[in-house]
Amino acid sequence: MKTDLDLEVYLEEKRLLVDRALEEALPPTEDLSRPVVEAMRYSLFTGGKRLRPVLCLAGAEAVGGSAEAALPAAVALEMIHTYSLIHDDLPAMDDDDFRRGRPTSHKVFGEALAILAGDGLLTLGLAQLPRAATTGRLDPLLAAAALEVIARAAGHQGMVAGQAVDIGSEGREVGEEVVDFIHSHKTGALITAAVTSGAIIGRASVDQLRRLEEYGRRLGLAFQIVDDILGVEGDAGTLGKPVGADQLRGKATYPRVAGLDRAKEKAKAMTVEARLALEGFGPAADPLRAIAEYVIVRKK
Amino acid sequence: MKTDLDLEVYLEEKRLLVDRALEEALPPTEDLSRPVVEAMRYSLFTGGKRLRPVLCLAGAEAVGGSAEAALPAAVALEMIHTYSLIHDDLPAMDDDDFRRGRPTSHKVFGEALAILAGDGLLTLGLAQLPRAATTGRLDPLLAAAALEVIARAAGHQGMVAGQAVDIGSEGREVGEEVVDFIHSHKTGALITAAVTSGAIIGRASVDQLRRLEEYGRRLGLAFQIVDDILGVEGDAGTLGKPVGADQLRGKATYPRVAGLDRAKEKAKAMTVEARLALEGFGPAADPLRAIAEYVIVRKK
Repeated sequence: MKTDLDLEVYLEEKRLLVDRALEEALPPTEDLSRPVVEAMRYSLFTGGKRLRPVLCLAGAEAVGGSAEAALPAAVALEMIHTYSLIHDDLPAMDDDDFRRGRPTSHKVFGEALAILAGDGLLTLGLAQLPRAATTGRLDPLLAAAALEVIARAAGHQGMVAGQAVDIGSEGREVGEEVVDFIHSHKTGALITAAVTSGAIIGRASVDQLRRLEEYGRRLGLAFQIVDDILGVEGDAGTLGKPVGADQLRGKATYPRVAGLDRAKEKAKAMTVEARLALEGFGPAADPLRAIAEYVIVRKK
Repeated sequence: MKTDLDLEVYLEEKRLLVDRALEEALPPTEDLSRPVVEAMRYSLFTGGKRLRPVLCLAGAEAVGGSAEAALPAAVALEMIHTYSLIHDDLPAMDDDDFRRGRPTSHKVFGEALAILAGDGLLTLGLAQLPRAATTGRLDPLLAAAALEVIARAAGHQGMVAGQAVDIGSEGREVGEEVVDFIHSHKTGALITAAVTSGAIIGRASVDQLRRLEEYGRRLGLAFQIVDDILGVEGDAGTLGKPVGADQLRGKATYPRVAGLDRAKEKAKAMTVEARLALEGFGPAADPLRAIAEYVIVRKK
């Protein structure tokens, strides 16, 4: 399945597009709200992988839509992802001091501003698609449909539920079905929504949407299992955070309930299935195929 | 300015409408996400005044629209208001143990679930209007315009900024302009958005919208000043929370920077101005007029 696509170039090109749009959506300010805006910007501009926004743009392109039209959804996804990292790192949650090689938000700005920076990013993220609709950049019904998918993935039926069960399972014996729930909700839901929200904006057919959802679910699971594996045997310097923290904390991870070998097999199987879900899509879906490959070999 | 309107009856009728819609939007669940959903419901169903949703429905009716059409915005506003109370009460913020006569969320569910319950309510709140659009209950462009107004009021240009400056001003000498910033952002913005989002859904004219915005700003300021005054000389039993906490904490309040007498005068003046902004509106705006009266005489 050779393609002419250079994933590095594709990712870089899309990242630039996303970073420019993020900068436009949240410029610095000089008024009294400057501290909270700085805290929001601190976490938003940290050289993240921008995986979710890129998946969103790639999802739009896979069904023949334009990346440009999907940009408000991409911005929304990265802001929502960033908010979730800030809140997850809080002392009351995972109590992490480092993220992407830098001190976490509450270490720099204190807990109150970190909570508010997360709240601000979540709110601003969910405001991107309505804004695109009222300024005539996006069909209002497509904007609503894409936003509904993203909000459901982010909320108590998605990411919020995953994090709640994750926290509630710490240090307890849990089975594979609980780990599956955590992974599919905490990480899988937003990754899936990234692909499908882009595809909705690209005017995907019902059948295309169903297959891209399948792709997203497999990819999300592979991504999180690899995350768990890197948490066990990754390189702290490359990751920008300590290794072994999940174990110390008694986190419900796939390697813990199924063993490292089975975890690696499962991650591999998921990327194969993710690619299989894309059968019938033409070369426009090559970026999605390449991302599935990348997820399994990534080191951070 | 006598009217036939019985505000008690009006408020009760609208509250019932809102409570039924809230219940539909967030039913109990039996799956693994039950704890976080219970935490969300605990704070959402506490016999709150439902001021913001009622203002939203009244805003729609004031311009000849239907309360029914504005209901998704009303639900959104109450969820967003509730999330802000949960996060404001957190130990890292105002560290309050009681709210509406009951233990605050983090006292009952712990800090992690309280943070997540707030996140979940904010997300679900912002998802209401897109959902109304995709299910054909609301014109998608009206939904987008109303949501944009609400999200701006809730985010870093509104409520989040107000709370950040509020926290940052604790125990410091601040002038009236800082108190104005806190009040207009922390409380005023969402109260104004309640009226205007309803009016947008009711297809208000530009001029009507401008005057309702004026009404909302005055009402919001009056409301917050009365809140400050009740925090000094209210009845703890009626309020459901301790009196004198603002002073102990060195909170930037209007009575503190201007004195109790001037605070009372200002609140009174604001309600008069709020009612003046409604000149030219017919009897359809009587509920808004009555609410302005109510805000100044309320005891909780």
